[in-house]
Amino acid sequence: MVLLVLAIILSAARLGGSVAERFQQPAVLGELLVGVLLGNLPGMARQFSTIVRGDPMIGMLAEVGAVILLFEVGLESTLREMLRVGMRSLAVAVLGVVAPWVLGFLVGRMLLPEHSVYVHVFLGATLTATSVGITARVLKDLGHAQTLEARIILGAAVIDDVIGLVILAVVGSIISAADRGTSLSLGAAMLVLAKALAFLVGAFSIGALSSPRVFSVAARLPGRGTLLTTALAFCFLLSALASLIGLAPIVGAYAAGLILEEAHYIDFADKGEHRLEELVRPISVFLVPVFFVLMGMRVELGAFLQPGVLGLAALLTIVAVAGKQVCALGGIGAPVDRTAIGIGMIPRGEVGLIFANIGLGLTVRGERVVDERIFAAVVVAVMMTTLVTPPALKWRLTRVARRRAAEAVAAPAA
Amino acid sequence: MVLLVLAIILSAARLGGSVAERFQQPAVLGELLVGVLLGNLPGMARQFSTIVRGDPMIGMLAEVGAVILLFEVGLESTLREMLRVGMRSLAVAVLGVVAPWVLGFLVGRMLLPEHSVYVHVFLGATLTATSVGITARVLKDLGHAQTLEARIILGAAVIDDVIGLVILAVVGSIISAADRGTSLSLGAAMLVLAKALAFLVGAFSIGALSSPRVFSVAARLPGRGTLLTTALAFCFLLSALASLIGLAPIVGAYAAGLILEEAHYIDFADKGEHRLEELVRPISVFLVPVFFVLMGMRVELGAFLQPGVLGLAALLTIVAVAGKQVCALGGIGAPVDRTAIGIGMIPRGEVGLIFANIGLGLTVRGERVVDERIFAAVVVAVMMTTLVTPPALKWRLTRVARRRAAEAVAAPAA
Repeated sequence: MVLLVLAIILSAARLGGSVAERFQQPAVLGELLVGVLLGNLPGMARQFSTIVRGDPMIGMLAEVGAVILLFEVGLESTLREMLRVGMRSLAVAVLGVVAPWVLGFLVGRMLLPEHSVYVHVFLGATLTATSVGITARVLKDLGHAQTLEARIILGAAVIDDVIGLVILAVVGSIISAADRGTSLSLGAAMLVLAKALAFLVGAFSIGALSSPRVFSVAARLPGRGTLLTTALAFCFLLSALASLIGLAPIVGAYAAGLILEEAHYIDFADKGEHRLEELVRPISVFLVPVFFVLMGMRVELGAFLQPGVLGLAALLTIVAVAGKQVCALGGIGAPVDRTAIGIGMIPRGEVGLIFANIGLGLTVRGERVVDERIFAAVVVAVMMTTLVTPPALKWRLTRVARRRAAEAVAAPAA
Repeated sequence: MVLLVLAIILSAARLGGSVAERFQQPAVLGELLVGVLLGNLPGMARQFSTIVRGDPMIGMLAEVGAVILLFEVGLESTLREMLRVGMRSLAVAVLGVVAPWVLGFLVGRMLLPEHSVYVHVFLGATLTATSVGITARVLKDLGHAQTLEARIILGAAVIDDVIGLVILAVVGSIISAADRGTSLSLGAAMLVLAKALAFLVGAFSIGALSSPRVFSVAARLPGRGTLLTTALAFCFLLSALASLIGLAPIVGAYAAGLILEEAHYIDFADKGEHRLEELVRPISVFLVPVFFVLMGMRVELGAFLQPGVLGLAALLTIVAVAGKQVCALGGIGAPVDRTAIGIGMIPRGEVGLIFANIGLGLTVRGERVVDERIFAAVVVAVMMTTLVTPPALKWRLTRVARRRAAEAVAAPAA
């Protein structure tokens, strides 16, 4: 069964990706749209897509695909390059959390005046966390993964994920406290933050110190495949640890990719192994499309049609997109395209959906924090941000590349 | 969780593989032994291994690993080369089914005289089917996958699998008929055979005809990764179809590998893509060890200790090994090493275990066809054949290579 589904997903993804590329769009847009198509077929095929969407095996392969993608993207930068943009990423992340939260809160006040302030706060919170998968993929598809913009965006997305965790803990405990009429425990939220920071600092310091040694020992082992195996084990280990802490596994995978540098495995190059990027690529060609097709399949077009959803969804989408444009301010003073940063931060994904999902189970004095209508609107907004980003980012990056090329030509003449 | 297990399995597999290679043994032996070790750790770790053994996600990744391995091995031969050794493979397969069956039957008569003839027949049947994974891997590890011996063995293993299906259907219906006192229906068994043959003939003819066209169309799609994606989709499709028919998925994967030839995707080479073998390799480095480590983990050393098991298991193992040596007769008249063929056919695997498992559920007039003791003995025999083959085959192939080299030196002088 899984094999058949894989065969279908892979063929469909490549077809979709190719069509997108023919129209000068990133392949990921085609994969997402093919997923939307597969997920909303009528009749018999509907059962097929319901099974695939809920299949834990396919879900796991997709998850591993996302991990491999972020690992691959992380490999294209070094830890040093990331630290250099660290403060800037932090600024981008914080701005990108505050603005959509405030705007989302206002949308709630406006369109859902009958609900309590807790609902509005929660609605804003669902819009805060950036999902880096789409942006990472577009940057890769267009060969921009090593630019300064890419590093700032990806660093901000990692920080975002940490902030998102803390927000969830804080908002969750505020609501629980309000519901029970007890006072609020900030201790739990602080613990979450401490654990997340400890993970990142620990991973980067211990990882960066130990990785050259581990690889130099591994290079002495006989047999082929040791470089790839060691790198994958390292990536999976950090992903699993991130997941244990409560962070998204892809945060760990990205950290692993950042830590690994070519200098660490120079001994393998001497043995005639390919570069790590080349070795990881076929695995990513295999598994990454599974992630994006499945993401597309999870978009239920029916959600658009529920009464009252469309208006709320449209406003949430606008606010989600507009809110992240404030991130551009974080790029001030650096030789970067600020608009590209704002666009790159648009996509929301799993974290927003996880928020909404948790909200479905929370109540404040008998009122559910997130009801079916709000949930559907959040899902629609998440998916719109996902579909809108690839073409927008492609448009902007092409302009930037053209402008820089023109400047490069003009500069010597000046 | 899955990510952590993967990290552990991959590191352990590479360590084990490297140690095996340091002792001039195939890497797969090290992976199996590491698996046995991980699967039989004491104390806390015992729970870990129980969870891993039963985890459907890891099981699925291992299964995909086996599929990728047989696809990779199939890529190293062409369909034409296989058809040339077809009759010889058929002879090897038939001999290798009859001899262990008769010997297994006799062991049953001797050691289990209190059981009925049905039990003896079934015991013999569990020893018939060759599991090609181990042999394919050893041949690959040692760079012998393109030899005439390799093609004869792998072809015979595919035929074995078809025969095994038919035997299971026939023996199963004989026993059911005996139990119910009704007459025997051979129709069902014939249907199974017909379906299996139709699949193989269909896959080879339709596949060989359509594959050049599919790949030439695919080569016109823009974007990278199309060659690998198309090939994987083709491999998974045939594996899924084989599985639907009731054959092992790896039979379909091997067929897909045989069908695909470099000539079919020559257009991709012009576009600067790597060779398909090189593209598949990283995926196999990732997933294949998962299969062998899990196979090792499923070996319960405790099974050796049950009373009465050790004697039966020892005799079954001897018979299982000796019975397949008759396969060597199938090599008469060809310029091949017949001993290597006999050794290559030794490993038993999933099919034998599936047989034994089905036997656990069958009864003839109140007597269970396979009881716990017989089951444990079959499991032990299967795992002994698995552990014995890599060093034996390595020893033999090294001798053959040395002899041929000596002949090549001697020939011009003569």
